[in-house]
Amino acid sequence: MDRDFAELKSLIGEIADLTAVSSLLEWDQQVYLPPGAEETRAQQLETLAALRHAKSTSARLGKLIDRLSAAGYDPDSDEAAILRRLSRDFERQRKMPRRLVAALSRAAAHGQFAWMRARKATDFTLFQPALERLIALKREYAGLFQPPSRIYDALLDDFEEGMTAAELDRIFGPLRREQSRLVRAIVARGPVDDSFLRNGRFHASGQLAFARETVKRIGYDFNRGRIDLSTHPFTTEFGANDVRITTNVRPGLPLSCLLSTIHECGHALYGQGIDPAYARTPLADGASFGFHESQSRLWENQVAHSAEFWQFFYPRFQRRFSGALGGVTFERFLQAVNKVECSLIRTEADEATYNLHIMLRYELEKGVFDETFRVADLRDLWNAKMVEYLGIEPPDDARGVLQDIHWATGEFGYFPTYALGNLIAAQIWAKANAELPQLGMEIANGRFTQLLGFLRENIHRFGAKYTPAQLLERCTGSARIDSKCYLDYLRSRYRL
Amino acid sequence: MDRDFAELKSLIGEIADLTAVSSLLEWDQQVYLPPGAEETRAQQLETLAALRHAKSTSARLGKLIDRLSAAGYDPDSDEAAILRRLSRDFERQRKMPRRLVAALSRAAAHGQFAWMRARKATDFTLFQPALERLIALKREYAGLFQPPSRIYDALLDDFEEGMTAAELDRIFGPLRREQSRLVRAIVARGPVDDSFLRNGRFHASGQLAFARETVKRIGYDFNRGRIDLSTHPFTTEFGANDVRITTNVRPGLPLSCLLSTIHECGHALYGQGIDPAYARTPLADGASFGFHESQSRLWENQVAHSAEFWQFFYPRFQRRFSGALGGVTFERFLQAVNKVECSLIRTEADEATYNLHIMLRYELEKGVFDETFRVADLRDLWNAKMVEYLGIEPPDDARGVLQDIHWATGEFGYFPTYALGNLIAAQIWAKANAELPQLGMEIANGRFTQLLGFLRENIHRFGAKYTPAQLLERCTGSARIDSKCYLDYLRSRYRL
Repeated sequence: MDRDFAELKSLIGEIADLTAVSSLLEWDQQVYLPPGAEETRAQQLETLAALRHAKSTSARLGKLIDRLSAAGYDPDSDEAAILRRLSRDFERQRKMPRRLVAALSRAAAHGQFAWMRARKATDFTLFQPALERLIALKREYAGLFQPPSRIYDALLDDFEEGMTAAELDRIFGPLRREQSRLVRAIVARGPVDDSFLRNGRFHASGQLAFARETVKRIGYDFNRGRIDLSTHPFTTEFGANDVRITTNVRPGLPLSCLLSTIHECGHALYGQGIDPAYARTPLADGASFGFHESQSRLWENQVAHSAEFWQFFYPRFQRRFSGALGGVTFERFLQAVNKVECSLIRTEADEATYNLHIMLRYELEKGVFDETFRVADLRDLWNAKMVEYLGIEPPDDARGVLQDIHWATGEFGYFPTYALGNLIAAQIWAKANAELPQLGMEIANGRFTQLLGFLRENIHRFGAKYTPAQLLERCTGSARIDSKCYLDYLRSRYRL
Repeated sequence: MDRDFAELKSLIGEIADLTAVSSLLEWDQQVYLPPGAEETRAQQLETLAALRHAKSTSARLGKLIDRLSAAGYDPDSDEAAILRRLSRDFERQRKMPRRLVAALSRAAAHGQFAWMRARKATDFTLFQPALERLIALKREYAGLFQPPSRIYDALLDDFEEGMTAAELDRIFGPLRREQSRLVRAIVARGPVDDSFLRNGRFHASGQLAFARETVKRIGYDFNRGRIDLSTHPFTTEFGANDVRITTNVRPGLPLSCLLSTIHECGHALYGQGIDPAYARTPLADGASFGFHESQSRLWENQVAHSAEFWQFFYPRFQRRFSGALGGVTFERFLQAVNKVECSLIRTEADEATYNLHIMLRYELEKGVFDETFRVADLRDLWNAKMVEYLGIEPPDDARGVLQDIHWATGEFGYFPTYALGNLIAAQIWAKANAELPQLGMEIANGRFTQLLGFLRENIHRFGAKYTPAQLLERCTGSARIDSKCYLDYLRSRYRL
């Protein structure tokens, strides 16, 4: 049994290395790839995907999984957890024909390039053929695991184990109504003046330096990570010792760089905090996309939008950008940080409106896979729903249906996990505050070790050992994602 | 036959992709890898190397090579050239016992660590045991391909196909005598004042910007490449559409950044100029290390040390660094660019003395593999030869026998290709000037398309299709590397 397990670990170690290498190629593609090398890179990623698929579905691996799964490991052991994850992935991979693996990998690479071109031209029709191809392939993929009526559930399950459209409808239905009501109530108070942010001078190098210093203070380990610039901020890991963040600077949005970097830092702290013993196993991962997002959102929102956080950081931020902020009081600044406004771009949306952007995307992608909607109609549907949920209409496709990269890479079923992340974050935040009564004071003093310690202890170190439901139960006492904590948190944030 | 060839191309395409991916990981390691991730990266590279080795020695590949080699392709066809390169590599890989592959890779890793420690302590004896181990393993490796009397030839052949010690002795013997004489004659003229370079202010960002502008003008395609910073400048390619340069800025050596970048640009132009039809085949490579170096040296020396080059660039350089160069005339600057000085470090040596550094290394490594010399004596031999060839004695091992990394990674037989590159560059340069009588005037006007066109047409596009000797003959009419053109060039450069 021990010898079998050692052989298994060597096989899955190779697969983990190939996955890390693919991630590095994707990181490079977003950050440094010369434009003329698109096709070359697509080919390299395809070769790696095919190799990984061959190794992930080898008969030898299947035999070892079967034999070891029958060997009776303690269900709470790491070995049992590894085998559980492996069996799930193995089944999934084994059902995929090689042809489909290669086609999906290529379509995703081409999808990204088409999306970038379409975005530049702000013309959805330039992206439409690539998107249709991706959806057709993803439909074929999902059909391997679920009957036609539950195609979208198969996609969801890739990002959030066990999640279904029915469960999402249960959660999102009441949430959307209540969240819309809250947004209307806040907006009705009248506009918040944040012109000093929009019009002030905040030099890019200062923004980047401040973001770096802040995440360093929060606990991001630069010895095992780095920050680069990319169009769309993201976090990627090539093992717990190499967890990289990207960020960007947006003219006229001087908090965007800082808050994006803190958001990505939340993801990165999760990656850097996983038990090193899980290296090169499927446990060196987050429990789910929703859980991962809970970590980024908790730092971005619960922490970095709080009065306590800015009690510590505002004097520093004000000093750094004294030209723009010299005459701006703490209260005025905090109001601007927490300004609520119905706006066009998800990644720039405030906390109060953010989930509405997600639910829009969820409904559209679910509709496309249900064949309720056609791809050709996505632009108009998008624009109509923006009017319905947020009262504004995108003036062009770049600020509408083309704003996110996810569909371009074939990641359907991903968006809902952002909203789930917000809900999970609120559940964890409530628990952390109950256990750590001094948390607010610590944060007001620029100290984050208590909070990071709580997250490491209760979430990060376990990696993907537990299912999302198990982990949520271990951490908060409840296995169910629900919106109560989240709505309570929103009401308190906006004093409603 | 066509079907077999298509299968062959798919197999070698995978191998080429894995090689490109490994190169990307190595590039990232030199340029962006967080310090804490070294071990993780080593593991990823090891996994890729094992995969590549398995694919490069598969029975199926061997069978296809055999069958297709017997199929009678036109000897001048691309197919025949691919098969020739493949047979050579396959035999080489297949003869290597796995044990030796692993032992060499470990010894190279340990060699680097020992070298770094020894260099820090400036004590050759700390490096000696690791070096002895590497030499023993390399001797075993070479013995797989050559009888004991020609061990070193097998090593040479890895870097310069067909090259032998006998041929090098034929070339280097007279060259060394004449080059020493030239150096003595130049040095006897008395010192050149370049204090304005050593003491002037040349801000790093200006140096980098100037280097970028210059290589862009020369013809480096930023759409298929990029420039980053690393400790030691290098060029690496992940296909002809992604050929990257690194460079650096050295305090007190303000021409180093520009000239290094031009040197690397020379390598990169070769990579970017290879026939796109050779992508993912062994032909997407240079003809040899010597040929590759000829391209970097031609741009660095023949072009970027010429009066014509600086006629165009000096006014721009002077404007950019007006504080340091405002009062420096063109003649004084050009003298400083072409200053000759007997110095300790190969990578900082000028054109006139550089080959003497190489011949010293060649004689030592050949002597060790011939068993004329013992490893224990290398330090004293090095120092004695430095006195003999350049009239100076290294004050310590770090600036003597320990200065280069090549032996620490087991790359014996590499050094001679630097000198061969200088000779080949001069042969090509003579031919180019004979065919393009306006070349000097073109360069003086900052125009490089004639020269680049000549190199692309006669060298770059062929990639590794021809042996170095065949390519040299096609380009210059002579298959033999000889020092006549080079010595003529040196005499003209230094007006001797």
